Amino acid sequence: MNKDYTFTITNTLPGTMARAGVLHTPHGDIQTPVFTVGGTQATVKSLTPEMVKDMNGQAILANTYHLMLRPGADVVEKAGGLAKFMNWNGPTFTDSGGFQVFSLGMAYKKGIDATSHSAKGDAKHAKHSAGQLAKVDDEGVSFRSHIDGSPLRMTPESSMQLQWQIGADVHMAFDELTSPLAGPEYVRTALDRTHAWAERCVSEHAKQWEAHQKAGKPYQSLWPVIQGGRDEALRRESAKFLGALDVDGFGIGGVFEPGEIPDVVRWVCEELPDDKPRHLLGMGSAVSDLFLGVEYGIDTFDCIAFTRQARNGSIYTAAGKLNIKNAKFKTDFSPLDAACSCYTCTNYSRAYIHHLLRAEEILGLTLASIHNEYFVVNLVDQIRESVIDGSFMDFKKQYLAEFDPNLNTEKQA
Amino acid sequence: MNKDYTFTITNTLPGTMARAGVLHTPHGDIQTPVFTVGGTQATVKSLTPEMVKDMNGQAILANTYHLMLRPGADVVEKAGGLAKFMNWNGPTFTDSGGFQVFSLGMAYKKGIDATSHSAKGDAKHAKHSAGQLAKVDDEGVSFRSHIDGSPLRMTPESSMQLQWQIGADVHMAFDELTSPLAGPEYVRTALDRTHAWAERCVSEHAKQWEAHQKAGKPYQSLWPVIQGGRDEALRRESAKFLGALDVDGFGIGGVFEPGEIPDVVRWVCEELPDDKPRHLLGMGSAVSDLFLGVEYGIDTFDCIAFTRQARNGSIYTAAGKLNIKNAKFKTDFSPLDAACSCYTCTNYSRAYIHHLLRAEEILGLTLASIHNEYFVVNLVDQIRESVIDGSFMDFKKQYLAEFDPNLNTEKQA
Repeated sequence: MNKDYTFTITNTLPGTMARAGVLHTPHGDIQTPVFTVGGTQATVKSLTPEMVKDMNGQAILANTYHLMLRPGADVVEKAGGLAKFMNWNGPTFTDSGGFQVFSLGMAYKKGIDATSHSAKGDAKHAKHSAGQLAKVDDEGVSFRSHIDGSPLRMTPESSMQLQWQIGADVHMAFDELTSPLAGPEYVRTALDRTHAWAERCVSEHAKQWEAHQKAGKPYQSLWPVIQGGRDEALRRESAKFLGALDVDGFGIGGVFEPGEIPDVVRWVCEELPDDKPRHLLGMGSAVSDLFLGVEYGIDTFDCIAFTRQARNGSIYTAAGKLNIKNAKFKTDFSPLDAACSCYTCTNYSRAYIHHLLRAEEILGLTLASIHNEYFVVNLVDQIRESVIDGSFMDFKKQYLAEFDPNLNTEKQA
Repeated sequence: MNKDYTFTITNTLPGTMARAGVLHTPHGDIQTPVFTVGGTQATVKSLTPEMVKDMNGQAILANTYHLMLRPGADVVEKAGGLAKFMNWNGPTFTDSGGFQVFSLGMAYKKGIDATSHSAKGDAKHAKHSAGQLAKVDDEGVSFRSHIDGSPLRMTPESSMQLQWQIGADVHMAFDELTSPLAGPEYVRTALDRTHAWAERCVSEHAKQWEAHQKAGKPYQSLWPVIQGGRDEALRRESAKFLGALDVDGFGIGGVFEPGEIPDVVRWVCEELPDDKPRHLLGMGSAVSDLFLGVEYGIDTFDCIAFTRQARNGSIYTAAGKLNIKNAKFKTDFSPLDAACSCYTCTNYSRAYIHHLLRAEEILGLTLASIHNEYFVVNLVDQIRESVIDGSFMDFKKQYLAEFDPNLNTEKQA
């Protein structure tokens, strides 16, 4: 086959499920484990592609839902695909749009359920369905644009078509996300639908590849998304079902409470075939989950929380987080993190970043984002090296002993 | 003397007042005529210093008023001065704070006068003084912070002290700005005050230099600001008076209506000594004023309008301006300006900038700002070259014939 897409595991770590490898795509190689950089709207917020390359960013993950709304998948296609459109000469991923269709406009954090459970819903949770924007049926999902409220529809087939237009190297299959508040009955229903939809994605994907191949265009890989909430049996079942499909890799989806990710990753990766890559979707910002994710078999991560926090002045250091807007940093002329080699820490002081963010200057958002994104990209790079040289368990122990997630979280003084 | 500050005129253009030269400062040389890049709050809005260097930006102009308020001139001094604080390894200018003290919080554009004329004011204009934030007397100006309303005071001496703390290579003397609505009597009073203040600035400047010299610190130059409204006699008088002082260069200040700048510049430069540099303060965004300013003897320009317009989607091209947010650019995959060699035009399409600005993405502000600021910096560079090689008049004629200031100014569709 001329798919120009391979995944090669180069190292494993005895006694763990961790592995290092190379994901080869038409737009270049990715050394795994890797933290992919969030580029939701075909831009990494406040950063140029050169800044992303400088921090050793290897791949960018954009969002089908956002690009469908603006500028339109057809526009991205006409531009020559996502990578070319955004001047990123490297590998790209797209999320299917499933997560956003179900979550945007919703308030998961406030405990409000996202989906319309209607007759199939659990009575216990139906009361949370007020204000819904998304309505799911077996064919697909009807929802409204979060931009202008216009009615839209997405199906497994349309998600595949959109993703082939956008042209990333890695596509996620269209899945149904369930709220952490959904009862077991609904999680079961949604999981069956996610599996049926994955099969429809595989069919549509094959059609798209055939057409693209005829047109001399490169392969785009398909990774279905494992769901099943926090239920071990469902997660294992989902991994087995999707693991048996003729696909290129896997996503692990869901909405998690703190501490839940490692168990779910372990259940899933114990069932998945070893020879295909596994992506933990939107993993959150718990640094320990990067270590445990790799330990239990994750190859690729993404999360936009690090740059979002940067824009709010919450800065990651090897010792933990600090709020750079705090008054005590006004005359602190040391770098954000003395041990960090990012562009920001090499060239600017805490006092300057403090000034820029207090003065609401755009460059402050850029410099803080460079630092936080470098922090997480570089940390996963170090984790990868530690898998390769066998020092992973020592590195993990030492790093997590020194990193205090509760450091210095006081508000701006 | 060890001032390490010189201005050398290398070329003049017969039949005009234009000249090209080199302004040598402790932080490096500036080839003139030059467009200095606006860095009001010790940052060029949305750009890194590398981006400014890449567009051949030679000097950055920051603002004493803004830096006094935030982060404080003392903080900038502790950081090692403005250039070091902002990681700009090149020459810097500071405006005195005079313009901002009189204008911020005011609404010149709405025809409201900025200053309290009290007993000295013209009755005709006194009614415009409502809502004043600044109160001027012969000693200085009392005003309120536009950030938190706290009462503040600036005098010629304090402006000099603040500027020596901030540590730019070029300081402007503290002057009194008059509104375009001020009557002749008030303009006369304000001009006398501006002259008296310039003499006090010279005294305080000498004291500061003596102290800094003893401490082994580099020279910082002083440029008083010529005022006099739109009155030819007053402008010529102001240029003669300030031209006779022992200073290093001159600013030309004021608030102008379209078309007024060239005459004022000519009157002033005809009176000023030839051997010192002349800066046109906040010149506005009329491209023709760049040509006419040089033709009548201006060496350095500044204006923040080009980047501000960029952030609003108003893009300069050799043919005129266009509104990149307009729907017709959604699928236009050509660069902003096919003739432009800036980073943005080399790497990105109109469609992408359109998308970023429509989606309110920060990178859109950065890419548009790079383009517009390159446009004006590069144009003045070309003007300089044309002064040197003698082609200035031809270049001016050709350029202004092709540039349509009214091109494509329609609003977003």
